[in-house]
Amino acid sequence: MERAPQDPGADPGAALDLTQDAARLTARLVDFPSVSGGEKPLADAIETALRALPHLRVDRYGNNVVARTGLGRAERVVLAGHIDTVPIAGNVPSRLEDGVLWGCGTSDMKSGVAVQLRIAATVPAPNRDLTFVFYDNEEVAAHLNGLGRLAQAHPDWLAGDFAVLLEPSDGQVEGGCQGTLRVKLRTAGQRAHSARSWMGRNAVHAAAPILARLAAYEPRRPVIDGLEFREGLNAVGIEGGVAGNVIPDECTVTVNYRYAPDLTEEQALDHVREVFADCGVAELVVDDSSGPALPGLSHPAAAAFVAAVGGEVRPKFGWTDVSRFSALGVPAVNYGPGNPNLAHRRDEHVETAAILRCEERLRAWLTA
Amino acid sequence: MERAPQDPGADPGAALDLTQDAARLTARLVDFPSVSGGEKPLADAIETALRALPHLRVDRYGNNVVARTGLGRAERVVLAGHIDTVPIAGNVPSRLEDGVLWGCGTSDMKSGVAVQLRIAATVPAPNRDLTFVFYDNEEVAAHLNGLGRLAQAHPDWLAGDFAVLLEPSDGQVEGGCQGTLRVKLRTAGQRAHSARSWMGRNAVHAAAPILARLAAYEPRRPVIDGLEFREGLNAVGIEGGVAGNVIPDECTVTVNYRYAPDLTEEQALDHVREVFADCGVAELVVDDSSGPALPGLSHPAAAAFVAAVGGEVRPKFGWTDVSRFSALGVPAVNYGPGNPNLAHRRDEHVETAAILRCEERLRAWLTA
Repeated sequence: MERAPQDPGADPGAALDLTQDAARLTARLVDFPSVSGGEKPLADAIETALRALPHLRVDRYGNNVVARTGLGRAERVVLAGHIDTVPIAGNVPSRLEDGVLWGCGTSDMKSGVAVQLRIAATVPAPNRDLTFVFYDNEEVAAHLNGLGRLAQAHPDWLAGDFAVLLEPSDGQVEGGCQGTLRVKLRTAGQRAHSARSWMGRNAVHAAAPILARLAAYEPRRPVIDGLEFREGLNAVGIEGGVAGNVIPDECTVTVNYRYAPDLTEEQALDHVREVFADCGVAELVVDDSSGPALPGLSHPAAAAFVAAVGGEVRPKFGWTDVSRFSALGVPAVNYGPGNPNLAHRRDEHVETAAILRCEERLRAWLTA
Repeated sequence: MERAPQDPGADPGAALDLTQDAARLTARLVDFPSVSGGEKPLADAIETALRALPHLRVDRYGNNVVARTGLGRAERVVLAGHIDTVPIAGNVPSRLEDGVLWGCGTSDMKSGVAVQLRIAATVPAPNRDLTFVFYDNEEVAAHLNGLGRLAQAHPDWLAGDFAVLLEPSDGQVEGGCQGTLRVKLRTAGQRAHSARSWMGRNAVHAAAPILARLAAYEPRRPVIDGLEFREGLNAVGIEGGVAGNVIPDECTVTVNYRYAPDLTEEQALDHVREVFADCGVAELVVDDSSGPALPGLSHPAAAAFVAAVGGEVRPKFGWTDVSRFSALGVPAVNYGPGNPNLAHRRDEHVETAAILRCEERLRAWLTA
């Protein structure tokens, strides 16, 4: 019986072979498209492959798959990764050339997912209990994020003493992450014909103190758990104007504050309010807010992990899902084989040696 | 034989009766829709009505109609008006109530056109030779403007010693008009992820000196021919931003300079360049430029006109087609029965007494 090729979930050839090394498995996963919203076939294949492993209990919620050992170890470690990718840009199927695997998701983050699957398949008796989380919709709007939805619906599935998110980090441990707050600062004026501008009040001119404040702002660089977090306060957009002959009555500056994890979301907002307190802002609206994550490197499980995988620990500047673990009280780090600078690019790629190295180091840590 | 009502140009009922007073004729013109681009039926009707007057030579170019006396007088005066209106906003047909005529174009400027037609019909032997100009497409893009196209194709039709544009001026003489220059000031930066803002350069922050300069700018108020022209330099728009997490690499401030008629277009541009010389502008692009018109009130024909119609002469702040006459070397003023503040409004209206007063005063001046 023939099957339509666009239905890989139903294709017997879609089974994942977890006996392949993590580099080959990465290629297999890249050739298995799973753009955000279209993860079902891959989630099905992952679920099927994991259910074949007798040492794991497998649960599923939507297109999120969670597999856990139940060995009664003193500690539980979560290995998590998203299975979706940004839209394909002519870069699927994957292509292997001189030890480099090219294609959509090679770096962000099917190489990490391949490492998760390999550990799940090859470490049946780890020294710590393990929870494997494969989730959907990381590359799209936050409210769709599978990890966030799991945290709401089944927080117990995510319980653990420490979590490793296999997001691309170039094989370095990245501790914590910045918080991000986006606000819209609105100035108000009064419309008038620009030939009689004195009849109105120009809301774009009223934004001058806001831009001056931004241009002069000196961001903090606090050191937390030994890591320097470099902040930033930036206009990411500005918009104002009615027509070419009208004095604008409204101007909106969208400001993004990336802040170190020694501030809470509330403190970050207070800081932004204070910075612009005397700048003639008519209205401040919070557009987006995602809390930071502390590095949590002082936790014994984290310290053991860092000691085992080696290298220098760096702070994470971009916001990542480690913050969702942090919010659940689970210290978390990013540690994955991909290079974050290659994510979302048409020429996305990963070195196969980096994938194998990541797999080895995690195995060494979990079997020592 | 019946005619479709949507074809008023072919309707025998479309004939204009120039024996009606100017107020009734205004109502007739308002009820004869002529939104910009749809002037043909009204231009046809005007041409037909004027051709019935043996003392006038009538020419036509597109939907522009020009009628002239040829009496060999020492001076020639041009009476000009546009026959188009902005789109109808549920305010046609016209409605007369307590001496006020309501409807689209009552003020801008079918009342002025009615006065032109009445003078054409009732003053066969004026003390000055007369040229009546009825033109299209004033309310839309400048390159479509019928007066501008006439000035290019048939400048001789527009020749004269003095011109009166019957645009709404509340029955006051408005001398000259401001020039208007619109430029786009672009600042440049470098994109980066907003979590690592120090890797980029923020083009919105770079616009801070431009807005500060605008906010602090002190416009001139020069007195020309006894009229105070009040200038203005304003941002009419600002735009910048790539995405909520990206440092913008470009920001554009659109600035409108409304300047007095003692500056040429070139001088106005030089001034704007000078104002923003040290504000970090990466590029200045001229978006739009229309020269000013000097009041020209010292010309004998203009002085006689002002003396005849009376009232205080005011400067015109908005740009009007008097500037097109000015460019042809014909001094021109605005003088019409409508109130300019009511133009383009759903509740546009005009007092019938103002229309009749305008007609009387012009007739008095031209028959004294």
